[in-house]
Amino acid sequence: MNTFGNIFKISIFGESHGHGLGIVVDGCPSGIPLSEEDFLEDLQRRKSGGKGTTPRIEGDEPEILSGVFNGRTTGAPIAVLFRNQNTKSKDYSQLFDHPRPGHADFTARIKYGGYNDYTGGGHFSGRITLGLVAAGVIAKKVLAPAKIEAKILEIGGTSDINKAIELAQETRDSIGGILECKISGLPVGLGEPFFGSVESVISSAVFSIPAVKGIEFGAGFKVAKMTGSFNNDCITNAEGKTESNNAGGINGGITNGNDIVFRITVKPTPSISLPQETYNFKTGKVEQLVVTGRHDLCIALRVPPVLEAAAAVALADLSLIAQTVKRVF
Amino acid sequence: MNTFGNIFKISIFGESHGHGLGIVVDGCPSGIPLSEEDFLEDLQRRKSGGKGTTPRIEGDEPEILSGVFNGRTTGAPIAVLFRNQNTKSKDYSQLFDHPRPGHADFTARIKYGGYNDYTGGGHFSGRITLGLVAAGVIAKKVLAPAKIEAKILEIGGTSDINKAIELAQETRDSIGGILECKISGLPVGLGEPFFGSVESVISSAVFSIPAVKGIEFGAGFKVAKMTGSFNNDCITNAEGKTESNNAGGINGGITNGNDIVFRITVKPTPSISLPQETYNFKTGKVEQLVVTGRHDLCIALRVPPVLEAAAAVALADLSLIAQTVKRVF
Amino acid sequence: MNTFGNIFKISIFGESHGHGLGIVVDGCPSGIPLSEEDFLEDLQRRKSGGKGTTPRIEGDEPEILSGVFNGRTTGAPIAVLFRNQNTKSKDYSQLFDHPRPGHADFTARIKYGGYNDYTGGGHFSGRITLGLVAAGVIAKKVLAPAKIEAKILEIGGTSDINKAIELAQETRDSIGGILECKISGLPVGLGEPFFGSVESVISSAVFSIPAVKGIEFGAGFKVAKMTGSFNNDCITNAEGKTESNNAGGINGGITNGNDIVFRITVKPTPSISLPQETYNFKTGKVEQLVVTGRHDLCIALRVPPVLEAAAAVALADLSLIAQTVKRVF
Amino acid sequence: MNTFGNIFKISIFGESHGHGLGIVVDGCPSGIPLSEEDFLEDLQRRKSGGKGTTPRIEGDEPEILSGVFNGRTTGAPIAVLFRNQNTKSKDYSQLFDHPRPGHADFTARIKYGGYNDYTGGGHFSGRITLGLVAAGVIAKKVLAPAKIEAKILEIGGTSDINKAIELAQETRDSIGGILECKISGLPVGLGEPFFGSVESVISSAVFSIPAVKGIEFGAGFKVAKMTGSFNNDCITNAEGKTESNNAGGINGGITNGNDIVFRITVKPTPSISLPQETYNFKTGKVEQLVVTGRHDLCIALRVPPVLEAAAAVALADLSLIAQTVKRVF
Repeated sequence: MNTFGNIFKISIFGESHGHGLGIVVDGCPSGIPLSEEDFLEDLQRRKSGGKGTTPRIEGDEPEILSGVFNGRTTGAPIAVLFRNQNTKSKDYSQLFDHPRPGHADFTARIKYGGYNDYTGGGHFSGRITLGLVAAGVIAKKVLAPAKIEAKILEIGGTSDINKAIELAQETRDSIGGILECKISGLPVGLGEPFFGSVESVISSAVFSIPAVKGIEFGAGFKVAKMTGSFNNDCITNAEGKTESNNAGGINGGITNGNDIVFRITVKPTPSISLPQETYNFKTGKVEQLVVTGRHDLCIALRVPPVLEAAAAVALADLSLIAQTVKRVF
Repeated sequence: MNTFGNIFKISIFGESHGHGLGIVVDGCPSGIPLSEEDFLEDLQRRKSGGKGTTPRIEGDEPEILSGVFNGRTTGAPIAVLFRNQNTKSKDYSQLFDHPRPGHADFTARIKYGGYNDYTGGGHFSGRITLGLVAAGVIAKKVLAPAKIEAKILEIGGTSDINKAIELAQETRDSIGGILECKISGLPVGLGEPFFGSVESVISSAVFSIPAVKGIEFGAGFKVAKMTGSFNNDCITNAEGKTESNNAGGINGGITNGNDIVFRITVKPTPSISLPQETYNFKTGKVEQLVVTGRHDLCIALRVPPVLEAAAAVALADLSLIAQTVKRVF
Repeated sequence: MNTFGNIFKISIFGESHGHGLGIVVDGCPSGIPLSEEDFLEDLQRRKSGGKGTTPRIEGDEPEILSGVFNGRTTGAPIAVLFRNQNTKSKDYSQLFDHPRPGHADFTARIKYGGYNDYTGGGHFSGRITLGLVAAGVIAKKVLAPAKIEAKILEIGGTSDINKAIELAQETRDSIGGILECKISGLPVGLGEPFFGSVESVISSAVFSIPAVKGIEFGAGFKVAKMTGSFNNDCITNAEGKTESNNAGGINGGITNGNDIVFRITVKPTPSISLPQETYNFKTGKVEQLVVTGRHDLCIALRVPPVLEAAAAVALADLSLIAQTVKRVF
Repeated sequence: MNTFGNIFKISIFGESHGHGLGIVVDGCPSGIPLSEEDFLEDLQRRKSGGKGTTPRIEGDEPEILSGVFNGRTTGAPIAVLFRNQNTKSKDYSQLFDHPRPGHADFTARIKYGGYNDYTGGGHFSGRITLGLVAAGVIAKKVLAPAKIEAKILEIGGTSDINKAIELAQETRDSIGGILECKISGLPVGLGEPFFGSVESVISSAVFSIPAVKGIEFGAGFKVAKMTGSFNNDCITNAEGKTESNNAGGINGGITNGNDIVFRITVKPTPSISLPQETYNFKTGKVEQLVVTGRHDLCIALRVPPVLEAAAAVALADLSLIAQTVKRVF
């Protein structure tokens, strides 16, 4: 299930060290201005290169293969391709037999009977999110003028992010983080009852991002300690404006016209330089593994544009579906 | 989008005060023993009647309309119907004009152009989860011998649940809670890459339960403060058994053979006896609303079987899909 | 896969001799007037009772379980239930071991490992189309003011339908027929490229009707003998009006504003009074089978409202989807 | 809706004169040997170059972008890309204003608000079927050892195909044809009840092929003139072998173990050298149009591998789904 969406359908493909990776977006309305340049800002934000990110630098140049004509979307599927360039030809077969803890090495091996591409994490690499970011750029245009912004709240347990990264570098360990995403400017009425709630659709998209282990909307886990009289958001006008926003902009699974607000937690990168114990299929024993290669100390640093993209594709789909739920008489 | 699943497809219908509500389950394998009695235990657990739950007592008797023959599932769709009986004929029109804070009254009115059934919350009532519980009973049989168990961790911020309820009763306010769900006995390999991750599919189902505002898997939000060396679960044998279970039984979106563990937060029931301020469409002003009628002080108390059901339908679908991802040569 | 549609999703359930059968329609726009009376005309047209149809007369009374409030659709799923009443309690176990030729007795037995409900054809009975007709009534309202009309072109090879039925009655055999369906008043632009062509979606729905073995659009199989200059329909104005209609109202899979026209062929009812040879699982031999009970001599006579319903649900879905393919800038 | 399938999901993209076109296949089982060479035979069969086909010769070289590792499928999505090379840079804007009869020029213009890529037919070009053929090659491997073979029965109303083409060349007109497809070696039990019937799923895929206007299974339209006693296929053994095959290998929508047989009709290529009348948006008048450029006299000649591919993707999906309908107790 590498596809997502009912109307704004996206289909993702690719591996970390294969020929290429990308996305096909079906169901995007026609007439939207789109060019390769439009992808660059979010791709740049996702890129490594900063403190705490992997030294593997990719060009990450998107090529629009289809679906755009004279600078606008045509209504036909939009395919965006990224070529892999900076793939190291090192031997990854060790990881096949000696699966890294915290990675998909073990589960993919079992699920696919040993046929999975294990080089660089294969289809389970965080690199696949490039395609999601590209889809997100298109989705944001569908949602405009609504705005989606994700930011890092804390890294390694602190909001002093520089300090957290330095500490991790010293200890050669990795660290996680918490991000917040806010969507403003959406109309009332996105989201479908029951299985199509805004929370259902956003969380479904967001948990496709590797390393995400939790999500909460509005006041989130704090609601467990609140009383109803405190948690309820008082509606103040006919447009649904509320005083507080404990609901995170969603009631009954449907947008209420206030900002959608949610937070996610990102686990520390499982690949670390420190030696770790893990089962070795070849020897049949638990043995020490040292993961070599280039890694992010803190993958959370690169997640903001990916998180925005996940929220955008979820909401773009819901916004198109919402057009179909109208009284016709 | 009142449907869920790719193979084990469920379609939910009904309103709180309509003629009936229920579920259609399509794609259930044939040959599974099933009778109306099988539903009773989980329905009983979901029922009100205890301290902190609504005095509205329903018979909640399930009728299997189709899909079962000679005591076993046939492979055809299984329809289960519940009749509404104890519906009070009081006038709900007040809520149409004066929407309750924290409820779907406002969003449903706008989304459906005023045509939504607002009596008793209509299709947005927690009562609709009866159908989900029924689907869950069937899903659990598909997953057997795996076991799904949800329990309450805390209510109103404390694990002393009796005390929390008494306090809420005194203050005429409502309270929320945190639940944990554990699934044991699943094989390695359920879950699909990217958009079909176990976390994606479970969270998508779970957020269909009204009042859920957050979900976290394994160590959850705590991973943000962990280092990789601590968070990684050491694999100890060829079956994937891990020492710790910070991953909550899932790597790369795929079950790793350990227990799946996740927690959710449930908000306090928005209907409370205390007067609240909210916009009145009729007068065009923010005015005091007193919600009368029968309510749960703490809806979280009734959520455990619903949560199990949501997890069960998600995993039943993934377990059937997993059968199709096999090497064939 | 007893579900159909992307936005206007229908889920069908029931067996011929079970407790009941029906349909759940999800994604129907709100605000459409709907009552149980609205179903009666098409149900009546589908009913048996005329010359050449089965003597089993059902009440076929629809009950709307959900999704309608104050006489209009609410936007929530609409469930319609039919109770089975006139089910004969005769022993059908013979058909389990001695499968009728031309029926699903054999294939269902193998597919479901012997757990299928074989009484009265179970879920494979033509009686299940009651639910489809109900969904069709709703779909027609979504499509209004467009009109859908199906009629019988020939029965048993002749347009003298009375004569054909009399001949079949004399010979105690069954006969097939050809029907035509015409949809007028649809706008240009329904249908999606490639897999969502109008022909794809209509044929997919139409072949769910038991006994249909062929479908052709516009000039249909005759196009194989035409030249391009003859077959091409000259466009005569800006609304797409064409002189001829060999395309059956569809170009590139998309409605062109002219009438949609298609024909189907319906096979003779496989249940006949004449003795037939077929394999007997119990004896392991090919033996004579005499199918007793009440049958239609010509099922095609009852298909017109079912055919309209299949076309209607297909087009209702496409018409809702078409609303999402708009330029937004 | 450029996607197809529940488990074996394909997503098609591209335009005739764009950068490239192709397919993403999600849900293909792992472990299947696959290389670029495997595509060449069917691509060659689809190619132009013979008598009656367009002089536009494409390299049509497939590139596997993802989903294959060490010569076998991995279980991750398989993306196959074809670059467009021999695209003529001529001005197509005439066709935008003066739509060709029998083509999607008019319908696409209206549907997409004028933003569609109209060069070379854009996304509505028969060239897009390249991607379908590629998906078909993979699907055939999923279905192996079952065999799928399509052949031409007649062209221009005759089985003397050479003569028909010569006649068309002389008259500068185009001609249609009838093809038959046979699938042998499938097990009993593929196909789902009601909306997932084998006929539904195959026809849905087949009508995505441009120019197909009709389909019939088994005895097809002839069943309308048959009696039940003649049309019913006598079952002769426990494997379901039948004497005749009027059902085309399908009962109740489910494969019965005999050959699946169906026929389609293909309309004459709408692009012809003869002048035709059609509405001109620019002048607001019906005017003569002469379609220049390279065309197939008889597109049916190139359809056999495309038809096999459509049948293959439909059946591959049903064969994977069929694995999930098993008794588990």
